[in-house]
Amino acid sequence: MKVKLQEDVLKDQNQAAAFNRNVFKNHNMFVVNLMSSPGSGKTTLLEETVRALKNEYTIGVIEGDLATERDALRLRKLGVSTVQINTVGGCHLDARMVAKTLPEFDLNTIDLLFIENIGNLVCPSGYDLGQDEKIVVLSVPEGNDKIPKYPVMFKRTDVTVINKIDLLPYVDFSLSQAEADLASINPKALFMSLSAQTGEGMEEWVKWLREGVSPCTGQ
Amino acid sequence: MKVKLQEDVLKDQNQAAAFNRNVFKNHNMFVVNLMSSPGSGKTTLLEETVRALKNEYTIGVIEGDLATERDALRLRKLGVSTVQINTVGGCHLDARMVAKTLPEFDLNTIDLLFIENIGNLVCPSGYDLGQDEKIVVLSVPEGNDKIPKYPVMFKRTDVTVINKIDLLPYVDFSLSQAEADLASINPKALFMSLSAQTGEGMEEWVKWLREGVSPCTGQ
Repeated sequence: MKVKLQEDVLKDQNQAAAFNRNVFKNHNMFVVNLMSSPGSGKTTLLEETVRALKNEYTIGVIEGDLATERDALRLRKLGVSTVQINTVGGCHLDARMVAKTLPEFDLNTIDLLFIENIGNLVCPSGYDLGQDEKIVVLSVPEGNDKIPKYPVMFKRTDVTVINKIDLLPYVDFSLSQAEADLASINPKALFMSLSAQTGEGMEEWVKWLREGVSPCTGQ
Repeated sequence: MKVKLQEDVLKDQNQAAAFNRNVFKNHNMFVVNLMSSPGSGKTTLLEETVRALKNEYTIGVIEGDLATERDALRLRKLGVSTVQINTVGGCHLDARMVAKTLPEFDLNTIDLLFIENIGNLVCPSGYDLGQDEKIVVLSVPEGNDKIPKYPVMFKRTDVTVINKIDLLPYVDFSLSQAEADLASINPKALFMSLSAQTGEGMEEWVKWLREGVSPCTGQ
């Protein structure tokens, strides 16, 4: 079954977010809005997550980029339904852009939908896409000062994932400092650390996603 | 001598950019607008540049951040006149914000002014601040796909500086690929690579700045 879009949904960002949320709920989908700086490793994290979960769930991906289909091609290679949004210079996705992609998915079959936002630690934080969870990925080489320097993003997200922990020996970054900084501005936020490249720490992330998709049996 | 600001300069971004450009020219200043993703190492690059050049030139810094005075404090520790702009969530600097800081500098004494923009590979590229040169810093851990994926930034900047080359042994990044990608979208752009942390490659960057400040004798 394909979802139908009424024209008036696309007139207003908040109306579109409510529309998306309703569609996601009606189709029993768990939807994650993945945000970060450019180059934090969101797409690699997605690839490894798909590899870990594709035999358990049907996964869909919405790929947001300024230009190119590169990231969508990486996900499609893994056999995942992926729709590319090119914002042509726009610095974030909004709920209307996401709503427009929904008719391209067979929503009844999708359990878990990832929306990979534009690489930007500022603009995407203000836009509700109708997701269940907002995730921000921060990579070790970006440095410890990012949480205090970009507080709005870290305040507004449910989970902070520290990526590229395999680089900890080579750069100046403290995981305990990052955890304390996050707790001071967003005490309810979850904090995880992993390396999508080496697989270290991926179990906790994958377990958290299972609990989101299947709240009763996922644990 | 302090510069005086007329109210009407602040009404329009392009008018403010022209005002800034005129002020910079009248005071024989060489002005660099430094842009990048969050965590690419702009502030460390600035610190090392100040250490290399502060005995030759009087340097000023305008620090753009969403929140905190952290980066301004790092520069002030080196004895550099530094004015902080906090955009309170805004994703880029504009020429009006820069114009407002100018009365805080003793412009007659400044040879070289750095404007450190908000960490963001999208929004700042569209705003002329009145600078002489636009620089984008890309750090090795961000990956090779950033130049094709964020083409507008790399098309609109005069110089691309690859930073953190000390991490080349630990991540998948090719300098020759980056140079070729840049040449394909912006053939006139200069390409440099360095590590502000270890000092490798800093001579070329410092030499380029000297030529900007003193076009006749800097070489």
